[in-house]
Amino acid sequence: MAKKQQSELTTAEKKKQQKRDLILESAKVVFSKKGLIDATMKDIIEECGISRGGIYLYFRSVDEIFLAVLEQRSKRKFDDVREMIMEQVPFETILNKYFSDHRKRLLHSISDGMLRAVYEYYYTHKTEASSSLQQAQLSETKRTIHEIFQVGVQQGVLKDENLAVIAENYMFVIEGLGILALTGHITEQTIDDQIAVMRQLLPYRN
Amino acid sequence: MAKKQQSELTTAEKKKQQKRDLILESAKVVFSKKGLIDATMKDIIEECGISRGGIYLYFRSVDEIFLAVLEQRSKRKFDDVREMIMEQVPFETILNKYFSDHRKRLLHSISDGMLRAVYEYYYTHKTEASSSLQQAQLSETKRTIHEIFQVGVQQGVLKDENLAVIAENYMFVIEGLGILALTGHITEQTIDDQIAVMRQLLPYRN
Repeated sequence: MAKKQQSELTTAEKKKQQKRDLILESAKVVFSKKGLIDATMKDIIEECGISRGGIYLYFRSVDEIFLAVLEQRSKRKFDDVREMIMEQVPFETILNKYFSDHRKRLLHSISDGMLRAVYEYYYTHKTEASSSLQQAQLSETKRTIHEIFQVGVQQGVLKDENLAVIAENYMFVIEGLGILALTGHITEQTIDDQIAVMRQLLPYRN
Repeated sequence: MAKKQQSELTTAEKKKQQKRDLILESAKVVFSKKGLIDATMKDIIEECGISRGGIYLYFRSVDEIFLAVLEQRSKRKFDDVREMIMEQVPFETILNKYFSDHRKRLLHSISDGMLRAVYEYYYTHKTEASSSLQQAQLSETKRTIHEIFQVGVQQGVLKDENLAVIAENYMFVIEGLGILALTGHITEQTIDDQIAVMRQLLPYRN
């Protein structure tokens, strides 16, 4: 579907989007290297080779670029899972893929520069902006989980009972594991144990 | 037990402890009124009436006082529950009390000045200090829950199966609810629904 939209764009619009993507890609490199606090517009300009005037047509500040990178990142994060949902792949396959994507993410988050920058953002910005970002990321997690559950209901695997509440439990556990991962207090065992508990909550038909 | 320890202190030690408590009580008033960032040593000195030289015998900075207030607060938070654990009150009674304490806390956290100051701390301090504070609060929550479960095992109500993992699930959900509460995105229904899901995880004997 994303590709179809792409083909409907005019050449000028496509060029504009390519330039925006280039800025975001370059910014990601800078953030991963320097974190958020030490990153400057100058760094990003040098990385992408677009003029100072050119970049300000797209973004007014490092923070604005940072938020755009995050948005793109969170959209892409579970692309495979989203595609499986659309294609109505068997529920268990999607759920397994979702858990294994998180597993990978959690085990590698310590070495993930962008994730460190996200926490830098949480900890250094005014409560309101960062808490609404946190809020948005929470809702996004819950929404994806709930969509996976809906596939289970449609395929007759899950009863349609309490699924929004269970999705919220998953959301809390996944976000909490993320905090542990980032501070280095996580093991594969911890992740697998929590996934087992989450599975236990599902209202399977018979 | 706390009282017994108290009676073993010498008069000089008692006086010192009283003075420390006075500083912490006064600081709590200041933090609740002004938040953390705007609070100064001068504010705390004025509130408690101890001389500048006197206060520095106990604490070297506003941050140090803030962390001591938090420590005291987290010790007192579930005092009733801890006493019930020691007195081996029936498991269900303790668990109900624990959940109802959290329920109250979550519903009032929006108007709780100290809690706002805690988040100010998380968001404005260097990642390491604040993430280890967050870490400590997480572990504390898990420890209390696990102790309650142990009472259930001793009283023959719960099977000793997977309890550490379930305690961790509770910890994530409780901390996550706290974030929702603080940003105003919480209802009584949300809390009650999550408590119901948590209960569902318990391995009751028959």
